[in-house]
Amino acid sequence: MSSQIGKRISVTIFGESHGPAIGMVMDNPPAGLKIDNDYILTQNARRAPGNDPTATPRKEADLPEFLSGIKNGVTTGAPITAIIRNTNTKSVDYDALMRNPRPSHSDYAAYVHYNGHNDISGGGHFSGRLTAPIVTAGSILRLYLKEKDIEIGGHILKIGNAEDMRFDPVNISDDKLIFLSKSNFALLNPDVESEMRAEVEAARMDNDSIGGIVEIAVTGLPAGLGGPMFDGVENIISKAVFGIPAVKGIEFGAGFEFATMRGSKANDQMYYDGGQVLCSSNNCGGITGGITNSMPIVFRVALKPTPSISKPQSTVDLKSGTTTELTIHGRHDPCIVPRALPAIEAVTAIAIANLLSEVAD
Amino acid sequence: MSSQIGKRISVTIFGESHGPAIGMVMDNPPAGLKIDNDYILTQNARRAPGNDPTATPRKEADLPEFLSGIKNGVTTGAPITAIIRNTNTKSVDYDALMRNPRPSHSDYAAYVHYNGHNDISGGGHFSGRLTAPIVTAGSILRLYLKEKDIEIGGHILKIGNAEDMRFDPVNISDDKLIFLSKSNFALLNPDVESEMRAEVEAARMDNDSIGGIVEIAVTGLPAGLGGPMFDGVENIISKAVFGIPAVKGIEFGAGFEFATMRGSKANDQMYYDGGQVLCSSNNCGGITGGITNSMPIVFRVALKPTPSISKPQSTVDLKSGTTTELTIHGRHDPCIVPRALPAIEAVTAIAIANLLSEVAD
Amino acid sequence: MSSQIGKRISVTIFGESHGPAIGMVMDNPPAGLKIDNDYILTQNARRAPGNDPTATPRKEADLPEFLSGIKNGVTTGAPITAIIRNTNTKSVDYDALMRNPRPSHSDYAAYVHYNGHNDISGGGHFSGRLTAPIVTAGSILRLYLKEKDIEIGGHILKIGNAEDMRFDPVNISDDKLIFLSKSNFALLNPDVESEMRAEVEAARMDNDSIGGIVEIAVTGLPAGLGGPMFDGVENIISKAVFGIPAVKGIEFGAGFEFATMRGSKANDQMYYDGGQVLCSSNNCGGITGGITNSMPIVFRVALKPTPSISKPQSTVDLKSGTTTELTIHGRHDPCIVPRALPAIEAVTAIAIANLLSEVAD
Amino acid sequence: MSSQIGKRISVTIFGESHGPAIGMVMDNPPAGLKIDNDYILTQNARRAPGNDPTATPRKEADLPEFLSGIKNGVTTGAPITAIIRNTNTKSVDYDALMRNPRPSHSDYAAYVHYNGHNDISGGGHFSGRLTAPIVTAGSILRLYLKEKDIEIGGHILKIGNAEDMRFDPVNISDDKLIFLSKSNFALLNPDVESEMRAEVEAARMDNDSIGGIVEIAVTGLPAGLGGPMFDGVENIISKAVFGIPAVKGIEFGAGFEFATMRGSKANDQMYYDGGQVLCSSNNCGGITGGITNSMPIVFRVALKPTPSISKPQSTVDLKSGTTTELTIHGRHDPCIVPRALPAIEAVTAIAIANLLSEVAD
Repeated sequence: MSSQIGKRISVTIFGESHGPAIGMVMDNPPAGLKIDNDYILTQNARRAPGNDPTATPRKEADLPEFLSGIKNGVTTGAPITAIIRNTNTKSVDYDALMRNPRPSHSDYAAYVHYNGHNDISGGGHFSGRLTAPIVTAGSILRLYLKEKDIEIGGHILKIGNAEDMRFDPVNISDDKLIFLSKSNFALLNPDVESEMRAEVEAARMDNDSIGGIVEIAVTGLPAGLGGPMFDGVENIISKAVFGIPAVKGIEFGAGFEFATMRGSKANDQMYYDGGQVLCSSNNCGGITGGITNSMPIVFRVALKPTPSISKPQSTVDLKSGTTTELTIHGRHDPCIVPRALPAIEAVTAIAIANLLSEVAD
Repeated sequence: MSSQIGKRISVTIFGESHGPAIGMVMDNPPAGLKIDNDYILTQNARRAPGNDPTATPRKEADLPEFLSGIKNGVTTGAPITAIIRNTNTKSVDYDALMRNPRPSHSDYAAYVHYNGHNDISGGGHFSGRLTAPIVTAGSILRLYLKEKDIEIGGHILKIGNAEDMRFDPVNISDDKLIFLSKSNFALLNPDVESEMRAEVEAARMDNDSIGGIVEIAVTGLPAGLGGPMFDGVENIISKAVFGIPAVKGIEFGAGFEFATMRGSKANDQMYYDGGQVLCSSNNCGGITGGITNSMPIVFRVALKPTPSISKPQSTVDLKSGTTTELTIHGRHDPCIVPRALPAIEAVTAIAIANLLSEVAD
Repeated sequence: MSSQIGKRISVTIFGESHGPAIGMVMDNPPAGLKIDNDYILTQNARRAPGNDPTATPRKEADLPEFLSGIKNGVTTGAPITAIIRNTNTKSVDYDALMRNPRPSHSDYAAYVHYNGHNDISGGGHFSGRLTAPIVTAGSILRLYLKEKDIEIGGHILKIGNAEDMRFDPVNISDDKLIFLSKSNFALLNPDVESEMRAEVEAARMDNDSIGGIVEIAVTGLPAGLGGPMFDGVENIISKAVFGIPAVKGIEFGAGFEFATMRGSKANDQMYYDGGQVLCSSNNCGGITGGITNSMPIVFRVALKPTPSISKPQSTVDLKSGTTTELTIHGRHDPCIVPRALPAIEAVTAIAIANLLSEVAD
Repeated sequence: MSSQIGKRISVTIFGESHGPAIGMVMDNPPAGLKIDNDYILTQNARRAPGNDPTATPRKEADLPEFLSGIKNGVTTGAPITAIIRNTNTKSVDYDALMRNPRPSHSDYAAYVHYNGHNDISGGGHFSGRLTAPIVTAGSILRLYLKEKDIEIGGHILKIGNAEDMRFDPVNISDDKLIFLSKSNFALLNPDVESEMRAEVEAARMDNDSIGGIVEIAVTGLPAGLGGPMFDGVENIISKAVFGIPAVKGIEFGAGFEFATMRGSKANDQMYYDGGQVLCSSNNCGGITGGITNSMPIVFRVALKPTPSISKPQSTVDLKSGTTTELTIHGRHDPCIVPRALPAIEAVTAIAIANLLSEVAD
């Protein structure tokens, strides 16, 4: 199913960018969970546009309205529904949009998939705006994971040529992840912020955009979570993360660097520390055989530059069947990376919460 | 479910390395498909050990026996079952294996996941040997995809510092993929073979192992396949590919290189060619918005070096609760990359066959 | 997942009787379907209270508001969301309800299942009111099925001792099903209406309630739909139908009467009629081996009397741990059968629409 | 998926009656479960033909061979595979079978579903013989449930006009269910056995067959199991039970008798007994709101007479497109009811084991 994720705790995302509303339904949520609205708002604010110079100045309130599953601030166990009304839904030249798909956008692929019936205004169901309900769903499950002392956090690792330091994968504190989870421009080394912002600003000045990489960590997971082959931790997390627009790659632990590594260097040597099994390195990113191994989960996600740029581009005219030139107007994010980070953390929370429930028997 | 993949055509992999047999069951297979045994054997031979100097000399026949779903060489539509008897199942010192997990192996994680009940001999259910039934299942579905003119093929892109050329993502011929699919050491540029083999041989001489990267392409797919968010092409392929042991990363199209790319360079410009919509570049790897866009699918997969090396390593003694030293004996692949390639092609076929059936209505 | 049904077209029902709203999300709906609001309203009116003397006089508008998936009256293919605001949500003595579960209600079972966190006001998520979004979802898919000349219809077969005639299972016209689908008290033989209403009225006069049986038929289905064993037509329809409150039994074709039948009488003799394979009887209810066989699908569903009655009953006091007496106040349906019928037709439509999409390849 | 059941513990049934073998794969089985082979053989013997006069004299060994998931008699947690070789696979006049489908058999429906590619010999994948691996899978999970003091048992309630007494639904002992689970002709009142056998013998003498009803009970279940709407206990059990050939109806508790019952009689009055919540009646069959309520689960299943009878019947000739007469030769069960009982108990065990694992978090 296209807009749904999770076997045990199932989240369905709905809505179109310029339709009446967007939202999410979470089936089979944990019962008795206390909802911290401030936390949910903080996470939504991190992904909302206009809160950071790197983002488009469009303002979004994005305060979700809960329609079900919560009573007196506590989850009832019945499906939780949250919606956000769309205010910025001015009518657009629908025909023009449909006949001239934007390069590297979902426009043409969606046109074929839906036989031309998809709502393309503002990107429709494919709009980055749909990450708002994803963040809402993820925030609820992050509160659930926090009760089990599981923390998820991440930072911007790279934008253009500006690069942050990496997590020390054997030494990641909950406090650090909690700290990062509050930032609109999360970094391990604050000194690279100006350089990164310069990359974004330079792209903006050129009516262009720029891509990047984020790094995510999960702490507090018990060993033994996941399983072999097709429902392992990497399978479930990667399936979830590719649900965020612009994601084009994911690597766990040493990832692509394994290509040039010898086993003797790559293998994470094991030792006992106060009765606990640990590793002196964490090249496996906390996962061996698809199962958590007591080390923190660490992975990196590649994001492509937003395809909406103001430069003239070549596209097709689906009506006349000819090649033509397209110039996209309007205000767009020159860099989606900072806003994508909380959404990637959110789907990671959905994946982990489902993996946890599989621990049964 | 752990060892199962596919919603519409569901494949379940079973067996342990030193148990009676390994195999697969494919529920809901296409009916009326002609089974080409030579093709299936060729694919199994590609992943079998001993057929290439890079692999362990252990010999495996790996001729699957079909128990159901095929009559007179044609699929009946009922579940297809194929098994391979394990011959190399000499008893081993089980206790010793259980108490001293091998670093970066599934041993410790599986021990916790299964509360110490897992069969660890030869890697048990986590053994690379389990890729044999995966290749068998994938081969059947590749025959199904060939009927629809869909081809899947790949090559070794990198081993250590030896690197092959990449696919030209806008110009991949079926013949090239068919050619690669017959090779035990698939390369685009045969000149790098000696260099790659040298990397493997050097690792072997050092009682060590080495990792690598493979690159996969899929041609002949109609545009419009897949969907938004969580059941898109990238989600489904990545979930499948991480089912192959040693896989630690995946990137589609330009992947991690998007981080330093501007939108103006990254965007795939569109044009009409004889009534068909094409792109002049293929940085998106044939997928936009989680949906195929008429260009070939291209992705790369990172493989870690096999953790089984003969060098002394640090591990834990789960019985005494102390840190100890471990030396692994026996013959092991110094490089799993060539043998992993057909398995990755196989799960890609399973993923694509399922995506195809979702095209309904 | 609890409140979700359908693999290909997935419907999730949300909301609590006295919460802000109830509704449904349909993931993966058919794209390009024209929405007939009058039809949807007609079906919702059939299940709404107050429209028939057998029902409680409570008035419900039940006009669903569509939040997504529909543009200019046509489905876009993105998830469809419809909500109905709850107006009748006056606060109730929550504690009293929680400590004294109503006999044969979900109260006690839900209390245990949700660890006492469930919203019990008005039945919460278990309220019959939740059939409103089910009918909305089903109505949309019935419009989809109508495009394929598939009709679903049903009638009240029995209330107390008043009994309607049965469908002639070999001769069911689309027109008859369409006619029944418009009635608030659907019967094949209108003469039994007064007798049935008398049964209901008698129960009401006694502060009591009464059960019944409905009979459903589906015409226009192609042969070959469904499959063996666990995803056959009977499996999928029964799983869906038991989702409607008060349903306690289902039988296809001759059903429980098969117990006393000989094979020679039970077997549906086959013949050719103008190139079409038909049967001279339809004891199998249109399904053999879990697969449609070209005859209409016919099944009957047993409904228990609504447990909400004004008579004093014995229950437990969960707070004090003692047995006590309970008297339920307020206005309740003396007979749920007429209102349950459109809901059962609706889930049948969801089941059939999913079975249809499995026909792929 | 057609021949697969279970979300958490997934069982896939494979094989054709005259193919090389039949069997099952259980993915995600409980780890550390001790396998009692005698118990598994006892259950297989109950469903095997030839062990009772009511059954066909065909002999089947039906000793399953375990290929994976069991080491030293204990489950490892990896998928469990069991196969049974087919010995009785003499070649048959395939064409004749294909062109003349047997009335009320799956033959014609399967022919259409599989586009004429299905293996029809001996019923192929639709043969009652496929209940052997179902019983094997169910027996393993019954051993798992026994560890949790959950017992499943049943008896023949009706064959023709011969009828056994019903369970007293408020008073069902584990010992009684264990006793019934060992019988090849399970009855509560042994006095009706001769009468039932007379019904079967009379049908056999007439070259005919006869249907029946079985009644199943489950004890030891905790309250709170299951959920609202579509994954409740009734949904899951009914979906599983309709997977057994010949099943055409199911009712829980009072079932179809609710139609004539008043709420005041139907409602199960609640009381405290030594700190435990119980009901003085059990018309709901242990399930309210789709959730277990601390009372035993009780349901009845209707079975149609086996359609294989020696009397001449009318059928179609798919080759010539004409109506023709068919006479089925060979030995067939005049009554499938006694052999279907253990298979229905088996799928009930699969359903309950999956419901149990959903209790997580």
